[in-house]
Amino acid sequence: MELFEAIRRRYSYRGAFEDKEVPREDLKKIVEAGLKAPSGVNGQTTTFIIVDDLVLVREIGMMHLKNRALREARALIACVIDRKPEAIYEGYSFQIEDCAAAVENMLLAITALGYGSVWIDGWLRLEGRAEKIGGLLGVPAEKIVRVILPVGVPVEEGPRKDKKPFGERAWFNSWSRAIK
Amino acid sequence: MELFEAIRRRYSYRGAFEDKEVPREDLKKIVEAGLKAPSGVNGQTTTFIIVDDLVLVREIGMMHLKNRALREARALIACVIDRKPEAIYEGYSFQIEDCAAAVENMLLAITALGYGSVWIDGWLRLEGRAEKIGGLLGVPAEKIVRVILPVGVPVEEGPRKDKKPFGERAWFNSWSRAIK
Repeated sequence: MELFEAIRRRYSYRGAFEDKEVPREDLKKIVEAGLKAPSGVNGQTTTFIIVDDLVLVREIGMMHLKNRALREARALIACVIDRKPEAIYEGYSFQIEDCAAAVENMLLAITALGYGSVWIDGWLRLEGRAEKIGGLLGVPAEKIVRVILPVGVPVEEGPRKDKKPFGERAWFNSWSRAIK
Repeated sequence: MELFEAIRRRYSYRGAFEDKEVPREDLKKIVEAGLKAPSGVNGQTTTFIIVDDLVLVREIGMMHLKNRALREARALIACVIDRKPEAIYEGYSFQIEDCAAAVENMLLAITALGYGSVWIDGWLRLEGRAEKIGGLLGVPAEKIVRVILPVGVPVEEGPRKDKKPFGERAWFNSWSRAIK
């Protein structure tokens, strides 16, 4: 799929998935896109666990009763960073940015291959969910599952959230107050 | 350009740029890609200033003597977030992630359109640079320039940093210690 089409078509899908397997070849292609994302000082700090063992996938999915995509996914991609990221440049670490850039590459790859997904992030930080999932996946204590992406074939086109147009968020040569 | 080709071809370019203008049509197309990136709770928190006034571009570029791409760029894209991001979900904000996802979309768009760029981030946080650039661009005091992307036509193919292969950063169903 052409890049700008993939960017335009990507959206957060939280609906039902077909009962169709996601081949490992596609899952690897998606994660390879994540591996190619930029990272601060080329630190390549994010690691990835592709979960396609259905027992594990369902155990994780059942934790999120409101998100049907996670409950019905045929595979998940867990993105793992350090719990306390080490400074890599002048006292700063970039693991959150590194992970986000990798996630975006993967969401575009998921879109281009005809799958749906949604960036699951804040939900993991509550009620010890990241720790529980980390335990299921053998993630070491010094690491944390930061983002999870469910992957599957969407049953239908889901609803898309509105995006503000160019003039409300972007300007030439000088910041302008956004129209509310 | 096909998505996976854009992902494969994107890299951090810090070299010389041709003395060629970057048309506003292309700059808008790049920033539109950033606007379409996902954001936590659809907050759309990042705003963008496209700098193509050469006096401003050069004034900013001369601040980074080691980065030839920034010094010779014909345009810059400044990504602006809140200095103190407001919590948007259960006490968490996602402005760093939002900005990073938008930057990655824009780097892919820059690649697909035949330009080069590099994600300039940590450098802005030192010696009051983000504040100085924010002042030049009229950024309000409660906002901060988080990332800058120089844009131009690369004179040559620059060096690419090595990336670790799949098995060192990604696994199926269980985290494995990376081979060092």
